[in-house]
Amino acid sequence: MHSYQPEDLFDEHGRLKPELAALAPGGDRRMGANPHANGGKLRVNLEMPDFTDYAIDVKAPATEHHESTRQLGKMLRDIFTKNAGQRNFRLFCPDETNSNRLGNVFEVENRSFVEPILAMDDHLSPEGRVMEVLSEHLCHGWLEGYLLTGRHGLFATYESFALVSASMTVQHTKWLEEGIKLPWREPVSSLNILLTSTCWRNDHNGFSHQGPGLIDTVLSKKGTVARIYLPPDANCLLSVADHCLRSRNYVNLIVIDKQPQLQWLSMPDAVDHCTRGLSTWQWASNDGYVEPDVVLACAGDIPTLETVAAAWWLRHHLPELKVRVVNVVDLMKLYPPFLHPHGMDDTAFIEHFTIDAPVVFAFHGYARAIHEVVHGRPNTPRFHVRGFMEEGTTTTPFDMVVLNHMSRYHLCIEAMRRATRVRGLTPPLIAECNDLLARHAEYVRANLEDMPEVRDWVWTD
Amino acid sequence: MHSYQPEDLFDEHGRLKPELAALAPGGDRRMGANPHANGGKLRVNLEMPDFTDYAIDVKAPATEHHESTRQLGKMLRDIFTKNAGQRNFRLFCPDETNSNRLGNVFEVENRSFVEPILAMDDHLSPEGRVMEVLSEHLCHGWLEGYLLTGRHGLFATYESFALVSASMTVQHTKWLEEGIKLPWREPVSSLNILLTSTCWRNDHNGFSHQGPGLIDTVLSKKGTVARIYLPPDANCLLSVADHCLRSRNYVNLIVIDKQPQLQWLSMPDAVDHCTRGLSTWQWASNDGYVEPDVVLACAGDIPTLETVAAAWWLRHHLPELKVRVVNVVDLMKLYPPFLHPHGMDDTAFIEHFTIDAPVVFAFHGYARAIHEVVHGRPNTPRFHVRGFMEEGTTTTPFDMVVLNHMSRYHLCIEAMRRATRVRGLTPPLIAECNDLLARHAEYVRANLEDMPEVRDWVWTD
Repeated sequence: MHSYQPEDLFDEHGRLKPELAALAPGGDRRMGANPHANGGKLRVNLEMPDFTDYAIDVKAPATEHHESTRQLGKMLRDIFTKNAGQRNFRLFCPDETNSNRLGNVFEVENRSFVEPILAMDDHLSPEGRVMEVLSEHLCHGWLEGYLLTGRHGLFATYESFALVSASMTVQHTKWLEEGIKLPWREPVSSLNILLTSTCWRNDHNGFSHQGPGLIDTVLSKKGTVARIYLPPDANCLLSVADHCLRSRNYVNLIVIDKQPQLQWLSMPDAVDHCTRGLSTWQWASNDGYVEPDVVLACAGDIPTLETVAAAWWLRHHLPELKVRVVNVVDLMKLYPPFLHPHGMDDTAFIEHFTIDAPVVFAFHGYARAIHEVVHGRPNTPRFHVRGFMEEGTTTTPFDMVVLNHMSRYHLCIEAMRRATRVRGLTPPLIAECNDLLARHAEYVRANLEDMPEVRDWVWTD
Repeated sequence: MHSYQPEDLFDEHGRLKPELAALAPGGDRRMGANPHANGGKLRVNLEMPDFTDYAIDVKAPATEHHESTRQLGKMLRDIFTKNAGQRNFRLFCPDETNSNRLGNVFEVENRSFVEPILAMDDHLSPEGRVMEVLSEHLCHGWLEGYLLTGRHGLFATYESFALVSASMTVQHTKWLEEGIKLPWREPVSSLNILLTSTCWRNDHNGFSHQGPGLIDTVLSKKGTVARIYLPPDANCLLSVADHCLRSRNYVNLIVIDKQPQLQWLSMPDAVDHCTRGLSTWQWASNDGYVEPDVVLACAGDIPTLETVAAAWWLRHHLPELKVRVVNVVDLMKLYPPFLHPHGMDDTAFIEHFTIDAPVVFAFHGYARAIHEVVHGRPNTPRFHVRGFMEEGTTTTPFDMVVLNHMSRYHLCIEAMRRATRVRGLTPPLIAECNDLLARHAEYVRANLEDMPEVRDWVWTD
């Protein structure tokens, strides 16, 4: 450190020498004080519509399929309208906004395009506020600059290709980690990253399009600035997005698929669930509020589908097995409080996961993330995590979860293997699950689609 | 899947219709059979010098400082010479080859440069085989193409900025994962990535230059293609590099700092250690080959330094505490065999880590990685991992490990807290470690360098 020659710069009390301090410009012309470099000073809150206006009317859990991100697209449309005067919101999208089911924004907004516009062009304008270009780097960088100069935005991209700009996400997180230590730096809007087209649905893409790795990258960053949300349905997505778009000084990672998917929660239930960050889904559990034989936990939309379907299968075939279903929206909730401000203490953790029951955890990303976040909790070897394990390519939705050992039947087998109290009843049922997996393998290759009992599955009491 | 209209493409036996098969060109003109697209067919093994010729003569462990990567530079120089006829080796470096201490290559090779060359230019030539340009994307992409067309190479880059091209690393891994399934595809040379200038030494850079995240990215990939090595000194680096440069169809990630560092192992010991992937360092342990009170484990050069220094401090201040030191070079060794071909079974694991002794593990990267790889081993809650936790910026080497709670004194405190047999003896020693940390904080701020007892520490018996 001597090479910086501090004796030339500071006096004997460690203060910057006055003649050197005088070299800096004064007032707003100082680099950090210049409002162009301290965008939080210029920032105006977004006018937000009431997100509950876009709710899907879920009368009973898991009975109807909807495209969750389409509801978000309607909300984004109205954010554009409400903030048209301030002109301080933009949507950044390296893939197609329409393909991500956010196309409702084009009812009121255009894509930005500064070249001559032809009659066949679709919603292009030099004033357009939807930034669509097939470069994750450009979109990420534009959004960073936009936020740092006091505006608001959302970066919606393919999950797998979010890793293209992962280094930029990391550096922005680091910038925030340092920025929040400086009292004169005003907060800026959060960097909101929405990952759609996830690893679990590759009807038309393939292995290169399967990569949930950005979760690992964001998970390693400081709790003060990093957040990860895995809303399982449209109403949860709306609640999470409302929170993220109002927040400041965070990197918010939101992961949800764009395909039609079962809807779980009414809007009041979704708001309650997202506010808690994780909760026990009593409607899907049969533990009668007492200690269960096994906890089926899940984080992410597809893992939630497989987990709830597993709970349903088990309650129909093995009612003696007491199952609790826990759904996690806010991944950081699983951390202890000293690692993340959202973290829950052991008492709350045990309320959901018990102190010693086996936990079969279906996770959207690589399984390893869960083992880390639960380290230090009571009896962690009882956590049996299934997640993406680099298997599968262009195939049916259910075949993807089968190939990665996260299907409802895999979860049922694991729950039965781990819950020793009902051991005497399980062998024929485990055999039945294995038969179903064998039948799936045959059916999907013969019919090129999933078995009707899987494809058309809905919750029934 | 029906949308692909398989009935138009295949007959009733699932065979491609002959009239469609006839559309493909024949023989070597088929896309996959063309030697330009199946580079393994053209690949010639590298002529390798004997890596032990570049050994540092380590007479006793931890007594001399050397720049480990400089020895590798000498070996690379001779690889250039030995393969000059084949012209099939290149070094790719977005930072400066010299700054990474690999500059000996310029004794025999030049940087590639196709613009006019001026008198002041240093080792530039259109025929140069050192590819130096400040773009991780370009270097990574060049190397990928070079490997896929049957040649050999090494990508040496800043650890933090390896995340710039992480998405490319992932996609290459995926390509290999698929490629090895095809019997007609000949193996290509491995993608060798050397990360120097790591998060633990930031004498002249800062927080933006601290990011060991590529380890997490590679760790999530299939064991069939992904390898991570953390050689702790020059002789281990030479052994690892020799192995990687001869290997095929892998992504090899090698992490080691470029600064002068203590050397641990003689070349025969290094070869033995790297062949095993991990071993117990008896010379640093005082457990007398029986079950220790605590295992101090380490992976990575700086964690090894702090761990061995902690073992040394403990044997001098608390000889009653029986300490075993385990060093890990090959991170995948910690996986069970079903997850990685390098993985060790429980018997071997217990030989080093015992079945129930507390393990204080100092890790080069984010601590979470270790919790995942040891999941499923006996009594994993006893693993207490320290790693990079996004703390520190431009400061002294020891201050970096202090700020991230991985210093020798932190490791000593953790070992004493966890080893209950000697509980009655530890309070004054824990207090002494805390005093040393307080003294460090004061000393480093007053003197801008580390305390002499830390800076000049060497092993003594």
